[in-house]
Formats: sequence, structure tokens, C-alpha cells
Amino acid sequence: MPQQTDIEIARDAKKAPIVEIGQRLGIGAEDMIPYGHDKAKVRQGFIQDLNGRENGKLILVTAVSPTPAGEGKTTTTVGLGDGLNRIGKQAMICIREASLGPNFGMKGGAAGGGFAQIVPMEDMNLHFTGDFHAITSAHALLSAMIDNHIYWGNAEDIDTRRVVWRRVVDMNDRALRQITTSLGGVSNGFPRETGFDITVASEVMAILCLARDLDDLETRLGRIIVAYRRDKSPVYARDIKAQGAMAVLLKDALQPNLVQTLEQNPAFVHGGPFANIAHGCNSVMATTTALKLADYVVTEAGFGADLGAEKFMDIKCRKAGLEPAAVVIVATIRALKMNGGVAKEALTQEDVAAVERGCANLGRHIENVKSFGVPVVVAINHFVADTDVEVAAVQSYSEGHGVEAIVSRHWAEGGAGAETLAQKVAELADSGAAHFAPLYPDEMPLFEKIVTVAKRIYRADEVLADAKIRNQLKEWEAAGYGNLPVCMAKTQYSFSTDPNLRGAPTGHSVPLREVRLSAGAGFVVAICGEIMTMPGLPRHPAAESIHLNDKGDIEGLF
Amino acid sequence: MPQQTDIEIARDAKKAPIVEIGQRLGIGAEDMIPYGHDKAKVRQGFIQDLNGRENGKLILVTAVSPTPAGEGKTTTTVGLGDGLNRIGKQAMICIREASLGPNFGMKGGAAGGGFAQIVPMEDMNLHFTGDFHAITSAHALLSAMIDNHIYWGNAEDIDTRRVVWRRVVDMNDRALRQITTSLGGVSNGFPRETGFDITVASEVMAILCLARDLDDLETRLGRIIVAYRRDKSPVYARDIKAQGAMAVLLKDALQPNLVQTLEQNPAFVHGGPFANIAHGCNSVMATTTALKLADYVVTEAGFGADLGAEKFMDIKCRKAGLEPAAVVIVATIRALKMNGGVAKEALTQEDVAAVERGCANLGRHIENVKSFGVPVVVAINHFVADTDVEVAAVQSYSEGHGVEAIVSRHWAEGGAGAETLAQKVAELADSGAAHFAPLYPDEMPLFEKIVTVAKRIYRADEVLADAKIRNQLKEWEAAGYGNLPVCMAKTQYSFSTDPNLRGAPTGHSVPLREVRLSAGAGFVVAICGEIMTMPGLPRHPAAESIHLNDKGDIEGLF
Repeated sequence: MPQQTDIEIARDAKKAPIVEIGQRLGIGAEDMIPYGHDKAKVRQGFIQDLNGRENGKLILVTAVSPTPAGEGKTTTTVGLGDGLNRIGKQAMICIREASLGPNFGMKGGAAGGGFAQIVPMEDMNLHFTGDFHAITSAHALLSAMIDNHIYWGNAEDIDTRRVVWRRVVDMNDRALRQITTSLGGVSNGFPRETGFDITVASEVMAILCLARDLDDLETRLGRIIVAYRRDKSPVYARDIKAQGAMAVLLKDALQPNLVQTLEQNPAFVHGGPFANIAHGCNSVMATTTALKLADYVVTEAGFGADLGAEKFMDIKCRKAGLEPAAVVIVATIRALKMNGGVAKEALTQEDVAAVERGCANLGRHIENVKSFGVPVVVAINHFVADTDVEVAAVQSYSEGHGVEAIVSRHWAEGGAGAETLAQKVAELADSGAAHFAPLYPDEMPLFEKIVTVAKRIYRADEVLADAKIRNQLKEWEAAGYGNLPVCMAKTQYSFSTDPNLRGAPTGHSVPLREVRLSAGAGFVVAICGEIMTMPGLPRHPAAESIHLNDKGDIEGLF
Repeated sequence: MPQQTDIEIARDAKKAPIVEIGQRLGIGAEDMIPYGHDKAKVRQGFIQDLNGRENGKLILVTAVSPTPAGEGKTTTTVGLGDGLNRIGKQAMICIREASLGPNFGMKGGAAGGGFAQIVPMEDMNLHFTGDFHAITSAHALLSAMIDNHIYWGNAEDIDTRRVVWRRVVDMNDRALRQITTSLGGVSNGFPRETGFDITVASEVMAILCLARDLDDLETRLGRIIVAYRRDKSPVYARDIKAQGAMAVLLKDALQPNLVQTLEQNPAFVHGGPFANIAHGCNSVMATTTALKLADYVVTEAGFGADLGAEKFMDIKCRKAGLEPAAVVIVATIRALKMNGGVAKEALTQEDVAAVERGCANLGRHIENVKSFGVPVVVAINHFVADTDVEVAAVQSYSEGHGVEAIVSRHWAEGGAGAETLAQKVAELADSGAAHFAPLYPDEMPLFEKIVTVAKRIYRADEVLADAKIRNQLKEWEAAGYGNLPVCMAKTQYSFSTDPNLRGAPTGHSVPLREVRLSAGAGFVVAICGEIMTMPGLPRHPAAESIHLNDKGDIEGLF
């Protein structure tokens, strides 16, 4: 068991020069763009030349409905990657980049935990290789060009009441949620209401994460709907000629970032779209590149399997032509207890009955994932308070669902603690048992897609939606967007839209509050509940105690 | 003469690996943090260990009152650096970083021109090593913490009408100049008026450029005045505990960026404060480090000598304990013609009489610079339209002022074209003729400092200022800020505050419109005229035609 904090472990890491890590994957030094000695981007040209190669096997790590503390998806992803390498498999890890802003609110950070981490942790939680700054810049350029277009005569006849493109900043700043711009007279433009979201909520982020290459990136940027005309027709980013300059700002950011685990195994950490109004997975570029470089690629998707895995399958895999070979569902004893009705304060006490009740949640996630045609294994991410009988209860329940549940001790033991899990995952992935198919076909009408997810994944009875919303969806179908997948935005704490409804609820309704078209990213966002696109700082933000100590080390950030 | 554009020349550059460039300066590979293969930051620890070494000689490149196109200060700085290396001197160059936003307005970019350039040009005009993004982030964090402090009870009793800290973005976005924030109800805070400036106008930028080390940086950040209380006492950044986290965001940005000229000579490109509301010089960290690594350090300051050289001497040199050994005043035939009354359209026609009239401008700059106790040489930055008689007129005028004027052909010929200039500069710097002293002593009252600059440098008869402004200055003196230097903000096109008053005007008045206290940077800004801290985009922004071509090269940016 680690006696040190995550950051202490990360600082003690014996890192190999990143060039060495890359060379082991067959990437020449000239095809890496170093950022310091422990981070590197992989050149576009090198990636293009990989086209002919065979793909490795893609493994998704997802989770049961989580507690607010999270169930260790990233930690398990890292541990499994290290475990696979330990048992002689050539494996890579693909995860998302962290957002800068929230680190200054709550103590946060880390990429994994304990002895299952990716390093350099501090850089990854600060500016890293500048990808998010590039996204903020590209977004800001489009914002400025819209108001500038209106200022200089508004040739496209933009309805200033219907500018849907907001601004972004990578900071928790509630004061910017709703603002009035262009005050102060003629030379500052036409006053209008707008606001700022946090950078990870930008459609530019989702686009960067779904783009197949630079050309595709620019095309998608051009497709962003920025506003509507007085005749209600959409104004695209390409109408105001913004996509080329945006692509220039993003050309480096599109290249995946290579880093390493504590055990010197390779990892791409690239992209980080919101898991609610976007699809919540690392970039397609990183995943497809990793599949050419490694025999096994372990990746993860945000939130529980009802949200993360569904969007991973129906958006990312569908659009990028990926086929997952196996899925790991991370369960923790504490999350199952919470799903079994135990209050947060009592989660560390043994309660086998609660675990057994909570297993209904796990069971449904297993069924759901299997319905995509992919074999499943459960990883019990081991916590020190877990008892043997609690663990046995989960294993016996899983067996009843035809699935093995394996205790994994990567947090305490690193890759060595995940060897059994790795053996099972490799076996499943190699078995050829996967016959992946998304949940619904492209040609299904948009509202029906939403209903399909709600009924088949959330097990709701119905979707409640105004005529206004249904008509909006029909209009988009008429405009040629009917083939897009839907991107569900819902609480992660329940299958339902009520975060307090734990376990495996049935008979509930899904209220559809709002739909948004992300025409550049290529999905329709279906918002079922409150979605916060600009967080605020808490009463005592972590920033107040973050500082550099006498040795120049960062304190208070982690 | 170059047959190619600047960007074509820059792309054809034969760059040495940046590690080699650094090693030639005695920086070990482990003391460089690479950003790609052609950019590197120099580690803080290495810089600290240089303390005991002797300093090289500091050479400032400044200019006559310029035309709107600029007179080639950066080009001359680069050419002179290359020239010094060619004649066997060990020389380094220190210049400012470029701002991202303005590149998307007018075609811009470049660092130097022709065969006197610093590379990689494209990176330097886009994200470079992320310094400006770090400054934007640190600024944004402080902005968010102020509103958050007010939101959670306002323990410091901030008067929300007197929050002086605005927000910044590195983009030309006129719509953000004046905004109302915190609209939308209770959860978004208390509505108030504010606005965005461009990042280079941030006091954080000025602080980064004047900080001696990380400790000094954090102390200065803490001293920023963010607002006033209802009792009118200042609220500092340290009162809301922001300085530590801001320093964490800036710790990498504080380390100078090493790049190279087309001739593979070393250059630091670091920091870029506005030349009006700030002091307009590259960072103190870069200059002091370069002085330990090279025998000659060539640097520049923004705008003409009345603004740039004065602030370089009275702010940067005074505060950092630097002593310039020689000053190069860049003159062009076209700028002297314009100062001699010729219209922009006629600048390429020979007009010796106009050149002679315009020399009055040059003469005054020579006198001014000499008054700081530093020897001067004039560099005639040669343009193809210049005629021999025009050049001879400048040389003869300069001789009359006891100064040599040397034609420099670095644009067309690189360092070889600047050898004569380099010989003269080295001779002056080595002569021991410099006895630097700033224009006024620290203890002079603030208003008197402003009057001293206006009378002795601008040759005005008087400074016009409201009682309100004079009282403000007295209040700051009472609060302990009387020892700060003043940072003049004035048009660069004239010694006076009227941009159309060319040549060497006398008898004019300097109206002092506003004063601002930059307590963190450590100066009082004296604004004499309109100062734009957030530019707008033009009718047809360059962004509209910027794109990546089929080869992946950037087009339209330069």
C-alpha cells in the first residue's frame, strides 16, 4: 500500500527519456516533437504513414454508476495497461487531458492514482503541451470574427439575437456565465447578450477529438453553426471564413501527446471534451495512432457506462470506424454500497447486503455493454476497507451474469496488482468474441435515437419532450442532419435523470429539456437535466493555498 | 537582395539543433527544456548558478520617430548580432515575443526581415513556448478570484464599483472592451461593468518582464492592486491570496526562450509588454542571463528613442541594475523624409532637402540618448530606393553631431552587410565611454518626473494636468509609491502628443490625461493621449485568408 501521496509518488517516478519510450514504439526521434524531456507530440506525417498497418485490439474501461469521488476508471486504465505490459503484451494507454481551470477550485489533478499513474503529473495538470490553450485561442478567434463581421456591415445578415457561438476561457469564472458585450458606444460594436463556457465545453474541443486528420479538422470547423440569419437559416464558421485560421491555430494541438506510466509504459494523453454536452473520450487521432503502434490499447470514457460507454460506442467508435474487442467495467465496493442505498458517511463499514442490492446497478451495466456485442469483464478496484465477503458477493453476482469479476490491486501494487485482470482482458480481446454494433442505425430519426437510448440503456418508460423540441429535431432532419448520432447529457449518478435514484431503477421518464446541434463535431446534444458549462470557484478555492515552496516544487495543487 | 519573402527565407533556414546552439553558450543539454527541436527554455537553476560571472556589454537598438511601417529596429538588432558574430565577437540577441491576436488582423508576424531574421518564424508568431498563454491564464485566475471573493461574502470589503483589474484575452476583440458581467441572477454573482484588454497589456506581462527570479515574481504579483475598498484603501492580489497560484502558472514562462538567427547565432525571445502602458522591452531574465553568456548582448526597445530608449533606461536599466555600453539609433531615409514633411506616397522619390530637414528628428534623438551618458552610433537601415546623396546627407549631418552614421545592409546581405556597423558598435562598447545615469533620481516627486521627461526628452514647454491627477500622484507618494519611475504612454510618431507634428517640434504642451499605478510591475503610467488596450479586427481580417496549404504550410499569416 502506498505510504506516499499521489504527487509524491509521481515526483519520485523514474522516467525514461520520452524519446526512448517513443523509439520502443517504433517512432523515430525526428518524428517526435519534444516538450521538455518527458513529453512529446507525434508528427502528423509519421501518423499518416501508418495507414497500411494492422490495428491492435481496443479495450474500453468504463464503470458502474459512481460515487461523487469516482471509482478509479483512470487508475484502472493505467493499471491494466501496466499489467498487460507485465505479462508480455505490447500495450498502450489512451486517456484524456485535464482541464486547467477546475484545478484552482478543488484540489484535484492526478492522472491515475497510487502506483497506477501517468507522469509528469504536474505538467499534465498545468499547461501540458498547450493543446487547451490552442483550443481556447481558436474558439476566441471565431468569437471575435463573428462580432467583427457584424461590426463591418454584417454581409451575412446575422441576427444578433441569435448568435449561438459563445466565448470560452479555461478557468472557473461564474461572473462570465452571462454578460453583455459591445457596450461603450459605436466603436465597440452592437451590444448583445452572451457568455463564457469553460474550454472543455467548446465545440472546438469535440471537433479536435473527433477529427481524423488536418483536412477533416478544417472541414468540421467550417461546419460549426455560429448564428442564425433573420430568415432562420444557419450561418456557418466557413461563411465568415474562420476555419482556415482556426486550423492553423490547432495544427500542433491535433498531434497526440506521448507520455509514460510510472512503469515506463507508453500513454497518449490527448483531448478532453466534456462528458455531458460532448462525448467525453480522448481524441480519435490518439486512439487510431495507438492501435497502429501497439497490440492492445486501453482507453476510457467519462462517467458511468450508461453515459460514457454508450457515447464511446455510438459516437466515437461509429464515427471513427473503431471496434472495441473487450470492455472492463470498474466497480468498487463503496459504489455498489451507495447504489445499495448506503449513505456516504457509512461507506467504509462492511455491509454485504447493501453490496448485493447495489449489484443490480452493475448487472444492468453488464447487460447494456453486452448489447453492443462486446465481451465484458468486471474489475473490482480494490480499496483498503473492502472485506473478503463483500468482494465474494460481487464475484458471485457477476458469475450469475456470465461475467468474471476480478479484484485488481493496481493502486497499491502497480501493474503487478493488475496481472490477473490483464490476463483475462487479453484472453477476451483475443477470443474473437466481439461483434460490435452501435445501438441504433444512422438512418433512425433523431427523436427515435434519443428514445432508443432512454429505453434500452436507461430503461426508462418514455421520453418527455415539448412539441417545440420535436419540431426542432425534425427541422434538423430536413436540413440534412438526421444521420447524426445523439450525444446524451444526463446525471452520471443514476440511470434516470434523478441523481438520487440509485441502483437499477425502472418505470421512470426522461424529460428532454433542450437539444443543441453541434454540426461541426457531428452530433445532436440531448440535454436531460441541468448542465453546467461554466463552473464557479468554491468559497475557499484551492488557488488560495497553491504556491511554490523553497525547493520550487508546487504545493497545494494536488 | 532577397528574391524571396521573409517567410520563404525563414522556411529555407538551415537551423542547427537548438541544443547545439545552447551548448555553444555553455548550457548543458540537461539545462535546456526543448520545445520541438528549434526552441528551448533555459532552466531557472542554471540561471541562478551564473550569478558570479562577469557581465558582457549591453547594446541597445532604438530608432528615430518612425513611419507607420516601422524602421527595422528588430531587423537591425538581428543583423547587428549576426555582424558581431561574423567579426569574431561572441554576441547574443534579446528581443520580445510577438502577440498572437494582432496576427489575425493585419498580415504581420516575422522577427526581423530579409536575411536578418530569427527562426522558427511561424512558431514565434503562433503559440511559441506558451508564455503568453500562461500570462493569460494567470491573469484570468486573478480575475476569477476577485469576483469569487465578492460572491462568497466579500471579506475584504471590495467596492464593486472600484475593481480596477480587468480581464485579458490574446485576441483583437473589440466587443469585449466594455462589458457587464455576472448577469443572470444570484448564482452568477454581483453585476458590474468591466472589460477585456489584450494580453500584452496585462500587468502580469510587465511583471514577468521585470522580475529578477521566481521569488521576485511572486512578490510583485502579490503587490498588484486589484480594487479599492469603500474607504478607498487598495486591495492587493495578496489580500485575496492569488499570488502563489499565479506564480505556479508562470513558473515555466519565466524561463527565457532560446532560438537562433538565420546564421545560427543565439537569441533569447522572451516577454512582450506593450510599449505604451508598459515599458516595451524583453524580459530582465533574458537580458541578465544573456549578459552572463555572451560578451555582447544586442537588444531593442519599442517605438522611437523618445519612448523606447527612455523607458529602457529609466525603468528597465534602473530597476535591473543594467548599464548599456552603447546605443544604435536606427534611421531610414524614408523616415527622415517623412519627418522632413514628405507625404507617405512620395517616400520612394529622391528628396535630399527633405532628408536634411528630417535630420532634425535624428539629431534630437542623438542628443537625448547621449544625455543618459551612453555613446551613440547611427545605423542607416538601407532600403533599395535610397540614393547615395540622401545617405551622404545623413552621414554629414550626424558627423556634425559628433556621431558616425553607418549604412547597414543586413536585410539584403545578413550579418555580412552589418560588419562595419558591428565593428563600430564593438569599438564604442569597448571604449569605456559609457557613464550611464538615468534621467531623474528615484526620490524626485512623481509629477516632477513626468515634467522632466516631457521637457528634457520631448522638449515640451509644460505638462498640463488637472488638480485631480496631481492629487492622485500625491496620494500615491503618501502611500509609499513616490520612488517609482514613470512609464510614459504617448504617440510614437512625434516628440509631441500630436502624431502629425513631425521633425523636432518645440513649444508644445503635453496634456496628462490619466495616471495609473502598476504597483506590481513597479511604475506609474502617465497617459498622454489615446491609448488602445484592446485593438479591433479590420474589415477584412488576415484570418479570412490564413490557412494550411496542401503541403501543410501556413499561408496568409505573413
